[in-house]
Amino acid sequence: MGKRVGKRSVALDAPPVIIASACTVGGKEGEGPLKESFDTISDDSYFGEKTWEKAESRMVQNTVASVLAKAALSPGDIELAFAGDLVNQCTVSSFGLRESGIPYFGVYGACSTMAETLALASMAVSSGFASNAMAVTSSHFSTAERQYRMPLEYGGQRPPTSQWTVTGCGALIISSGGVGPRVTGITPGVITDAGITDANNMGAAMAPAAHDTLTAHFEDFGRSPSYYDLIVTGDLGFTGADILRDLFRRDGVELGAGYTDCGMLIFDRERQDVHSGGSGCGCSASVLAGYILNGMRSGRWKKVLFAATGALLSPTTTMQGESVPSIACAVSIEV
Amino acid sequence: MGKRVGKRSVALDAPPVIIASACTVGGKEGEGPLKESFDTISDDSYFGEKTWEKAESRMVQNTVASVLAKAALSPGDIELAFAGDLVNQCTVSSFGLRESGIPYFGVYGACSTMAETLALASMAVSSGFASNAMAVTSSHFSTAERQYRMPLEYGGQRPPTSQWTVTGCGALIISSGGVGPRVTGITPGVITDAGITDANNMGAAMAPAAHDTLTAHFEDFGRSPSYYDLIVTGDLGFTGADILRDLFRRDGVELGAGYTDCGMLIFDRERQDVHSGGSGCGCSASVLAGYILNGMRSGRWKKVLFAATGALLSPTTTMQGESVPSIACAVSIEV
Repeated sequence: MGKRVGKRSVALDAPPVIIASACTVGGKEGEGPLKESFDTISDDSYFGEKTWEKAESRMVQNTVASVLAKAALSPGDIELAFAGDLVNQCTVSSFGLRESGIPYFGVYGACSTMAETLALASMAVSSGFASNAMAVTSSHFSTAERQYRMPLEYGGQRPPTSQWTVTGCGALIISSGGVGPRVTGITPGVITDAGITDANNMGAAMAPAAHDTLTAHFEDFGRSPSYYDLIVTGDLGFTGADILRDLFRRDGVELGAGYTDCGMLIFDRERQDVHSGGSGCGCSASVLAGYILNGMRSGRWKKVLFAATGALLSPTTTMQGESVPSIACAVSIEV
Repeated sequence: MGKRVGKRSVALDAPPVIIASACTVGGKEGEGPLKESFDTISDDSYFGEKTWEKAESRMVQNTVASVLAKAALSPGDIELAFAGDLVNQCTVSSFGLRESGIPYFGVYGACSTMAETLALASMAVSSGFASNAMAVTSSHFSTAERQYRMPLEYGGQRPPTSQWTVTGCGALIISSGGVGPRVTGITPGVITDAGITDANNMGAAMAPAAHDTLTAHFEDFGRSPSYYDLIVTGDLGFTGADILRDLFRRDGVELGAGYTDCGMLIFDRERQDVHSGGSGCGCSASVLAGYILNGMRSGRWKKVLFAATGALLSPTTTMQGESVPSIACAVSIEV
């Protein structure tokens, strides 16, 4: 069961437990600062397949197998899966889970998808709709770049505000019992639109959405940023994270040293030439499933606010002159 | 709260109420057999906008305004919206709800999206996560055809198994109290793949998914098809519905006269030249929001099983030689 808290949030009465998490990334991510936290690093960006789309589905399939193994569960033990990705018509998730036999709800929240799948899976478990649910989210540099921007062979110049789509997948198993960090609260996102029309400046488009959701979260629960050991957005990148800090400063609120962003964490900005940082829903998914949850299990952080942000655009809306609506979904995870 | 029933279903302990529904369709749908059941029929396929994508978002916006007016609620009264569509990156839903300020979860279930949004909204309400939730789903002939198949100007020949994408939107408000039909049970879909590779034969691809979910539903709840006054799939069309009846006959089960399909209902097959019937998630959405729920309110049907089916393909997967994975989500609605 859940109960409404404040205007927009819910608290989970019987906080479900993240009993296992697994993540897979590509070679570039595996050379970054978080390399120790990933379960699998694949130097083959095709993951043994013939196309990038099939590669991303294979990555999903492998990560699901990995998280099931960690939890010592079989696919038949998972009663609901919530999954999403960036490839048109969410086909990566559908094809990745096609052979699993797990009851499936496809979701789409752009780069906020990891928080959306985690929120829905947690709500389902805390309400008795499932004893074990799964949240899975992925992105792949090569499927996303060619779909959203240019053929990779074109070699288009990237502006300083652009981010690098992460090849990565995160999968979590959320259960009604067991040991692990617990999902205690959810603040869903409201679509915001700051009028940004530059599809290469997602951080600026999404920062107001993160500001809106985090503000609602703090108000609803009567908390300040200092309640959390770690507040992590994903993926505003360096540009967007700076804007978010500024937006809070205007309100007289300091996010403080406990604030960071998955897009800033996953790559070494100087050494890896990623401009404003990482992006793609596989970024926050793999950082949550590895670095963050590992850190919670080891006692490094006790209270984490995970706020994934998504830019709800498409190449069609951009070509039609539309601005970029954005959303952020926040999930509080506590040990 | 929900409780697990059988292997795959859930029963809603406090069945949430569909307190209002509204639907908007295009001119062709407004000339069909269900014309009296639609709230709004627009002869302008652009809905006053300059592009079809903006038109579909406008249709969503209008339908949301209409269902709120029927329920005498304002956007601020809706605590969660679940919405989805067929346009790449679900942008129709995002742009359609951009100005509403309603907390939003985007979902993608292809043509099963109306059942998916209704299922998730009902689960959220029955568990106390929202007092009022909204489920919104749309499709538009011109946005879908040019995205999935050919430029409309090309005038490609349509094979007899092809279906006609409905221009339509359905919106429902699901509440913890009030008067109206109630959502009593949900059987989520498992992805099935019958190996169909013909993107013009969606009915054949989706029928096995409908068979799988309906079979699970009947087993889990210990019901036969005769429990329901109406079993309605959406959208198998004439081809797929015939296949579904055959699949059940092999099991020794007759779906009987109470079985029909939204894609068969919405157009006059002979007079409107739609080949195998209607499709697109706006088809089952507008038929549910109008014809079916009106019929339940007027006492024509007391027990309805709404099983929307989706083909989880994309032009990319088709071009890469993939078969068409499909899914069906079933929701039982009772007065």
